[in-house]
Amino acid sequence: MVITVVGLGLIGGSFCKAIKEKTNHTCLGVDLSEDVIKKAISEKTIDGECKDLSVSDITIICLYPEATVEFILNNKEKFKKGSIVTDVCGIKEYIVSSVKNDVEECGVTFIGAHPMAGREFSGYAYSLSDLYKNASFIMTPENAPEDAVSTLEKLVLDLGFGKVVKTTPREHDEIIAYTSQLAHIVSSAYIKSPTLQKEVGFSAGSFKDLTRVAKLNEDMWTSLFIKNKEPLIFEIKEITERLSEYLNALENEDSALMRELLKNGRILKEKSIEKNK
Amino acid sequence: MVITVVGLGLIGGSFCKAIKEKTNHTCLGVDLSEDVIKKAISEKTIDGECKDLSVSDITIICLYPEATVEFILNNKEKFKKGSIVTDVCGIKEYIVSSVKNDVEECGVTFIGAHPMAGREFSGYAYSLSDLYKNASFIMTPENAPEDAVSTLEKLVLDLGFGKVVKTTPREHDEIIAYTSQLAHIVSSAYIKSPTLQKEVGFSAGSFKDLTRVAKLNEDMWTSLFIKNKEPLIFEIKEITERLSEYLNALENEDSALMRELLKNGRILKEKSIEKNK
Repeated sequence: MVITVVGLGLIGGSFCKAIKEKTNHTCLGVDLSEDVIKKAISEKTIDGECKDLSVSDITIICLYPEATVEFILNNKEKFKKGSIVTDVCGIKEYIVSSVKNDVEECGVTFIGAHPMAGREFSGYAYSLSDLYKNASFIMTPENAPEDAVSTLEKLVLDLGFGKVVKTTPREHDEIIAYTSQLAHIVSSAYIKSPTLQKEVGFSAGSFKDLTRVAKLNEDMWTSLFIKNKEPLIFEIKEITERLSEYLNALENEDSALMRELLKNGRILKEKSIEKNK
Repeated sequence: MVITVVGLGLIGGSFCKAIKEKTNHTCLGVDLSEDVIKKAISEKTIDGECKDLSVSDITIICLYPEATVEFILNNKEKFKKGSIVTDVCGIKEYIVSSVKNDVEECGVTFIGAHPMAGREFSGYAYSLSDLYKNASFIMTPENAPEDAVSTLEKLVLDLGFGKVVKTTPREHDEIIAYTSQLAHIVSSAYIKSPTLQKEVGFSAGSFKDLTRVAKLNEDMWTSLFIKNKEPLIFEIKEITERLSEYLNALENEDSALMRELLKNGRILKEKSIEKNK
């Protein structure tokens, strides 16, 4: 197959590297930066620049949400009939509702997707051929033809993903608000204590873990958050409410309640570890 | 020197293993469990059981806060005159104010300490000779004799600690409320969303990082939290206040404000990474 990756940043670059390293497919690239295209060709990350989307059997759009929608709508007539177009955005309802019908009217299958992997760095320079190793590949196939779904599924398993999870755009957005978006909000809020100024020498793994993803790309995450407003508001209100329970236990010096709150959390975490094995 | 470790759990067991592996000191152990003592002797983690504290040049108490205070007060007459007694509790004001004067009246130097290392497991079975590698060793020497301070300092650097930080009990407790205790509260609160039930397949590194320390020992942490009530209440109120700023930005769909909030967090995290290099 010919696979075209649009946007050779961390995510797109990692797709290209995985395709070239783990499959025999031809991999073409599209990027606004000529330097990135040149570098990717010289490093054999891609076989060449894609100047005609109609050669591509699978087109993976690795751009920010708005740019993904814009690229797909602007090029909907140019994709190969019968080919698959997919994306990687951390928000699915917005993407799918913006492009799916238009693309399908042009005889192309659109399957929304979200590879559950990343790094606290962005750009081609940080892309890795094994970024997706054992990661979860979420897709929202809806009414897509079965053979297209299985073609995409086989490709991503070849690229190293550990499993494929199928869901609806709405369910994706609700769960991701908790498992990913809330983590970035909490991490960003965590780092801002006035006590941070005295932190050096006083922190171990827990501080590093809680604040790791505060180093984020604010343009991308702002777009994702605003587009997933309702589920994310729900999660922030929920954790705020739960934090107030620990606060009350402390204010009342209620050791029994604090112990119970912590024990419940420990048990849930242990079950979560088991379920993810 | 003869070094006695009291309490061969994760922290105490790791001290013993590091002492035996990295120094030529004699290492004796005290533990309520005969099985643990036998196992530690058979694994050469200790040279033997300590039945007489007066042989010990440095005694490291690796027990929970209340048990640490109780052990020290009950044995204050038995420590060797001129020797050093230290502890490992994650709370210093309570420990130091409870034991320091009593111990010093018996001709023994007490130096409060807090090794900044741990694992989300407890017990001797999980102890590691390199648990302290590159970690920070916090001590609260106050008026301790300089030679005692430098003896302890040299020992812990030999054991693999990366640096020694000297502070007061109060400052320790205030900073630790932020860098460690708050992390455990937030992690515990994070795991409890109703959305957790749908999480499998939808999470990547950020969810794992944010919830790792929810797997905690609720008895130990309840004790630490209640004893450090004021600074911890301050930190919970602070992060709750900051979370409400992100919530407001979302509710008002204020992208510019959200971007600013995230950007400020990113810059603080980047500075923190630099300062910790």
